[in-house]
Amino acid sequence: MSLKLFSTRIQNVTPSFIREILKVTHEKDVISFAGGLPNDALFPLQQLKQASLSAFENKGSQLLQYSNTEGDLGLRNWIAQRYQAQNLEITAEDILMTNGSQQALDLLGKVFLNKKDAVVIENPAYLGALQAFRLYQVKFLPIDLHSQGMDLKQLKQTLSINNAKLIYTVPNFQNPTGISYSEENRQAIAKEIAKTDSYLIQDDPYGELRFSGQAKSNFYTLLPQQTLLLGSFSKTIAPAFRLGWIVAPKPVMKKLIIAKQAADLHSNSFSQAILAQYFEKNDFDQHLTQLKLHYGQQKIIMETAIKKYFPKNTQLTNPEGGLFLWCTLSKKISTLELFQKAIQQKVAFVPGESFYTSNIQQNTMRLNYSCADQKIIEKGIRKLAEIIG
Amino acid sequence: MSLKLFSTRIQNVTPSFIREILKVTHEKDVISFAGGLPNDALFPLQQLKQASLSAFENKGSQLLQYSNTEGDLGLRNWIAQRYQAQNLEITAEDILMTNGSQQALDLLGKVFLNKKDAVVIENPAYLGALQAFRLYQVKFLPIDLHSQGMDLKQLKQTLSINNAKLIYTVPNFQNPTGISYSEENRQAIAKEIAKTDSYLIQDDPYGELRFSGQAKSNFYTLLPQQTLLLGSFSKTIAPAFRLGWIVAPKPVMKKLIIAKQAADLHSNSFSQAILAQYFEKNDFDQHLTQLKLHYGQQKIIMETAIKKYFPKNTQLTNPEGGLFLWCTLSKKISTLELFQKAIQQKVAFVPGESFYTSNIQQNTMRLNYSCADQKIIEKGIRKLAEIIG
Repeated sequence: MSLKLFSTRIQNVTPSFIREILKVTHEKDVISFAGGLPNDALFPLQQLKQASLSAFENKGSQLLQYSNTEGDLGLRNWIAQRYQAQNLEITAEDILMTNGSQQALDLLGKVFLNKKDAVVIENPAYLGALQAFRLYQVKFLPIDLHSQGMDLKQLKQTLSINNAKLIYTVPNFQNPTGISYSEENRQAIAKEIAKTDSYLIQDDPYGELRFSGQAKSNFYTLLPQQTLLLGSFSKTIAPAFRLGWIVAPKPVMKKLIIAKQAADLHSNSFSQAILAQYFEKNDFDQHLTQLKLHYGQQKIIMETAIKKYFPKNTQLTNPEGGLFLWCTLSKKISTLELFQKAIQQKVAFVPGESFYTSNIQQNTMRLNYSCADQKIIEKGIRKLAEIIG
Repeated sequence: MSLKLFSTRIQNVTPSFIREILKVTHEKDVISFAGGLPNDALFPLQQLKQASLSAFENKGSQLLQYSNTEGDLGLRNWIAQRYQAQNLEITAEDILMTNGSQQALDLLGKVFLNKKDAVVIENPAYLGALQAFRLYQVKFLPIDLHSQGMDLKQLKQTLSINNAKLIYTVPNFQNPTGISYSEENRQAIAKEIAKTDSYLIQDDPYGELRFSGQAKSNFYTLLPQQTLLLGSFSKTIAPAFRLGWIVAPKPVMKKLIIAKQAADLHSNSFSQAILAQYFEKNDFDQHLTQLKLHYGQQKIIMETAIKKYFPKNTQLTNPEGGLFLWCTLSKKISTLELFQKAIQQKVAFVPGESFYTSNIQQNTMRLNYSCADQKIIEKGIRKLAEIIG
């Protein structure tokens, strides 16, 4: 076949490097800090089984029929009420259910992005967002991340010389770095964006997983007309359901619904009904408390092990939630080379350079702590330390 | 906000007319032949409830975890085996699970279509395909449909002067017309396409729902290297699961997987596992026999009522399966005007002109027979006949 047949958008895109890594790390005897999975021992398995039964009993055959594009009204009402409890003025009508946050990113690409349009992204950034937007052949404008959030000087300069349509952020427990934007950083970013026509995307898959520190302002309160808020049940309930959502102002929502129809008519309504049942019968906050307790402990165990075993000049972020620690080693170390050695020793992580679109810090690594227990975390970190030498 | 912010692909697209119609027809006391839903009384409700329980019991927490992009291997093996039983050389590796066939269309757009690329479509055509491809800003090349399939003269001429990347077909019980391509028509189409670099899409959501006549060749046997085969569980099991699939040659499959990752990582793996359980424990062919029996009867009831009550010059297609009848009235009648009158009398259908991209036949209508019982079908058709006068 002729390669010319493929679209230009897909011709030069390769499978994500991280996926290739994850394949290697899937073998049973590998200690993997490479993934980004929630801990499956913490899934509310019995409760979801019960919710499935209730959904069959309560909804009957309607449970299996086609449904509306926007999503299950009961579920969207539940989501809206949680926002309202945080003083965000969001109703079910402002919410579109998507197949995880990933589809929200793709739909935003469809609705906003022409070839060569500019998109501001974090540097380093979430790979799924890069992948989604890259297929719209956009120009990325990376802004370096610091421990307090985006580099404001870079952001101001970038916004002053470029007409960015979208500014993509993960302000809470960012993937890959684990950092959160400080309150001041958020206020300053909102102030800059208010001067523009741009939309800020707050991708927030980990927002409910805060195990220490104080919650910061949601961009939706700072910039209600210019914020596109993404949420997900993948990290808090079950990734297999592929259910996330997007909150958007009405004119954007209209276009998103058209794009969603064209993309797949509607999200899995069977799983939406089960989730609605689950929330009706269970205390979600109690479930979250469990998750936060575990992830908080696992983070401390990993942090402690790193401080104990890694070289003294190692720098670590201090995540207050989420699934990831970000580790910066001595400048002379390439974590990509380290990865090759580590995988031979059956321990894995993600080399940081995969996440950069500029100003690559090749001495960085992403470590996931959510899926391993104390013994495994300590063993894996000790092994890694030995390889670093 | 500025309209300029939206992508050019979305600016001029409006919500589908059919969706607007369906909203009107959703009221309880309307007799609707407008939809395209499978009959929910025929869903294997108890069996799926049981399969859900088994999935929870057999898979445990893995049922809820992230999964691979390609889809559930057990389910893909099952699909492959059904193809093999029809002598199609298809294995699980050739299959990618999608969110219904609709997502397969969107992914094909992503992988193949640049702006202004040419796509051959049926005239009249399935609206979901028009919607999906329209967002890739393509040029449609409509080929008129006859009772035996595509107009071959038009097709030859179109392919000779255009470089079409994709040829979109629904050769079995087409939506909207209910017609099937004859064996000769398929052979002739395959012969023409074999001379080109193009891919033929066989969208086949209704293929398993043949209630009369003989099965015809799958394009995959006629053109294995140039056929993209789409399948769906929406019409045979449950639309709410949003599960379909695409069969594609390896170089195309590679690109599709990248596009799928960027679109939503993977399809709902919870529902895939339940379906795999369902197929393990139940006789799918027996279930299909039930569906075909019902739909075959409903089709005959509607056909008989139309022949009894509609004007003598009414023309009808003769579907051998699927969900739709296509009715051509006297040339002077506009079914769009008829629709306005009909909806006031609480009976609904879809005016045919919605489905045309050229050579509009405004005296046509699509009638869905799958969701109403004998009494309702007769009552609705009699009412329609009175309005036609």
